[in-house]
Amino acid sequence: MAAVTYELIKKDAKTKARRGRVTTPHGTIETPVFMPVGTAATVKAMRPEEVKEMGAEIILSNTYHLYLRPGHEIVREAGGLHKFMNWDRAILTDSGGFQVFSLGDLRKITEEGVEFRSHIDGSKHMLSPEKSIEVQTALGSDIMMAFDECAPYPADRGYVKNSLERTTRWLRRCKEAWNDRENQALFGIMQGGMYKDLRKQSAEEIVELDLPGYAIGGLSVGEPKELMCDILDDCVDYLPEDKPRYLMGVGTPDYLFEGVERGVDMFDCVLPTRIARHGMAMTSAGKVNIKNAKYERDFTPLDPECDCYTCRNYSRAYLRHLFKSNEILSAMLLSNHNLHFLINLMRQIRKAIEEDRFLEFKREFYGKYGEF
Amino acid sequence: MAAVTYELIKKDAKTKARRGRVTTPHGTIETPVFMPVGTAATVKAMRPEEVKEMGAEIILSNTYHLYLRPGHEIVREAGGLHKFMNWDRAILTDSGGFQVFSLGDLRKITEEGVEFRSHIDGSKHMLSPEKSIEVQTALGSDIMMAFDECAPYPADRGYVKNSLERTTRWLRRCKEAWNDRENQALFGIMQGGMYKDLRKQSAEEIVELDLPGYAIGGLSVGEPKELMCDILDDCVDYLPEDKPRYLMGVGTPDYLFEGVERGVDMFDCVLPTRIARHGMAMTSAGKVNIKNAKYERDFTPLDPECDCYTCRNYSRAYLRHLFKSNEILSAMLLSNHNLHFLINLMRQIRKAIEEDRFLEFKREFYGKYGEF
Repeated sequence: MAAVTYELIKKDAKTKARRGRVTTPHGTIETPVFMPVGTAATVKAMRPEEVKEMGAEIILSNTYHLYLRPGHEIVREAGGLHKFMNWDRAILTDSGGFQVFSLGDLRKITEEGVEFRSHIDGSKHMLSPEKSIEVQTALGSDIMMAFDECAPYPADRGYVKNSLERTTRWLRRCKEAWNDRENQALFGIMQGGMYKDLRKQSAEEIVELDLPGYAIGGLSVGEPKELMCDILDDCVDYLPEDKPRYLMGVGTPDYLFEGVERGVDMFDCVLPTRIARHGMAMTSAGKVNIKNAKYERDFTPLDPECDCYTCRNYSRAYLRHLFKSNEILSAMLLSNHNLHFLINLMRQIRKAIEEDRFLEFKREFYGKYGEF
Repeated sequence: MAAVTYELIKKDAKTKARRGRVTTPHGTIETPVFMPVGTAATVKAMRPEEVKEMGAEIILSNTYHLYLRPGHEIVREAGGLHKFMNWDRAILTDSGGFQVFSLGDLRKITEEGVEFRSHIDGSKHMLSPEKSIEVQTALGSDIMMAFDECAPYPADRGYVKNSLERTTRWLRRCKEAWNDRENQALFGIMQGGMYKDLRKQSAEEIVELDLPGYAIGGLSVGEPKELMCDILDDCVDYLPEDKPRYLMGVGTPDYLFEGVERGVDMFDCVLPTRIARHGMAMTSAGKVNIKNAKYERDFTPLDPECDCYTCRNYSRAYLRHLFKSNEILSAMLLSNHNLHFLINLMRQIRKAIEEDRFLEFKREFYGKYGEF
């Protein structure tokens, strides 16, 4: 029995949007889904119960961060990441690849893997396909991601082609190390930058390995939105219909709509909690910058259409006061609201697909919200 | 009908410790009680529901801070502090006196009041007895504190005598401004430094005004513990038995015991939440510095005897990881534990008084805990 399976429930009549369900050892996930990010074994400023209460069925955590601190062996000794962080629903871990590539001068790529220096203490380390799977095994996530190389944007064709081919070779090594175990799934990652034929090549190479799911990497890395949409449109067509599709690192409301419309099932992004810590909220009427002086005596909720804990109990004036006073409760309340907003948005999107009115719902939302 | 009344339930057989009940417009408070501090209209890193769940019946908030930010008029427009901060139990506000005196060079004391510059933006302000009552009226606290002058330690007799006499004159002005209203009580504050005869003089002057409660100010300001205990012993004797007694700014476990033993009913301190943000916890076995390397692989709870949310769900290894990673959840979980610890300690103290075994309980506690 595979650790993770996908069931297609319904296809939208007018777009590639689809309603599905992913089954994992830690419960089922209704898709399309937004996954809150818990980088260092905590969704920042949130108790796990809050994240559950708002309906999150899966969170993402980071291999690179947990490998360096506290160390994957400690998480393994604690009984795995679920137990360590008090989260009993599904967890997806990334491979650490994206983080080590982002280290710039601090890393060196070879066929074996990536040698890098820790951003915390400068110590020397090596992440490879085998090492990444070893770490993710210790973490005990339900879905492990393959160790890939994410080409930057822009990048020339030769670089991108070499990079995607190495990603495929690394994926084979990941699959070997993973060995189709019963309690953890492995997802492959498509690369290929902004070159459609390279995307096709990457997709064909990774789909051949018949993995439980596939991610689209290397998008939303700085390219214009139109280009992202155009490439994504193609990417999804190369992926099998009976496996979940995950667009990595995407989480603004408009990108979620564009991704769902093109057939993506899973998304993740640090955005909702990160902007919360900077006093920014996503609301049904668009962005709210709580620092703004006009909220000083605004005793209405952050989002009058929202039923989250924050909007039920506090005013904009209070939230502004907390932010201006550097109070921790500010990050707690705004993080709660922003995550609730995206999780609730995905709930509405799923319903819209079920009722064959996805495009209408998208239009309605854009009309009220604007682009983020 | 007075806004706040005190009922003496039981006196300890061997000490001056007493079990009582304070009734306020926002519920009753079982005493002796520890009051969590919510300086800027939030108990730092805590949702108000958490503070309620652990059994807090009253919190303290700060006039000086709220006067400057967001401004008491805004809190009044919000419907008062209870509504603004989503706390429906009792609130005690200090007068701002202690904070403005602590500003040092930034303030100037006259008979009228204290002229000072804001620690936030350097703007010029005046706090006086009347102004303090005006601000506390806007905040709508259940218990307002008189605007007093807290003499530093050490201070010479002449300074302390002048200061306490001014405090009495200011108290009369506070009482005049308060005018025995139905929904808010006014507590007077005894001063007199470390001079027993001056403490007596101060007590006699303020008790004559027949207020709903009395605080002991100017203790635990840097003097040795023995001196504090000696002075406190005297102070309490000068206060009426039918009114609550509040020892300001005291909150380490050993000082709570010493205060209760000498007949004090109410305490407050920022300590539990402040040390939490620095990775320190109070536990039944004494202090725990969660940063310590020995907790790296310690998968036991912070305090095995504690049933708080933190101890029920997380290990020392996880708490250490959160602190080392600068995660907000670290402050949230340790604040929760430390407040729970003190509130639970007061619950046990109340029970011990009811069962005439206060001194035995104190001995037991010191035996396990040591001094803080």
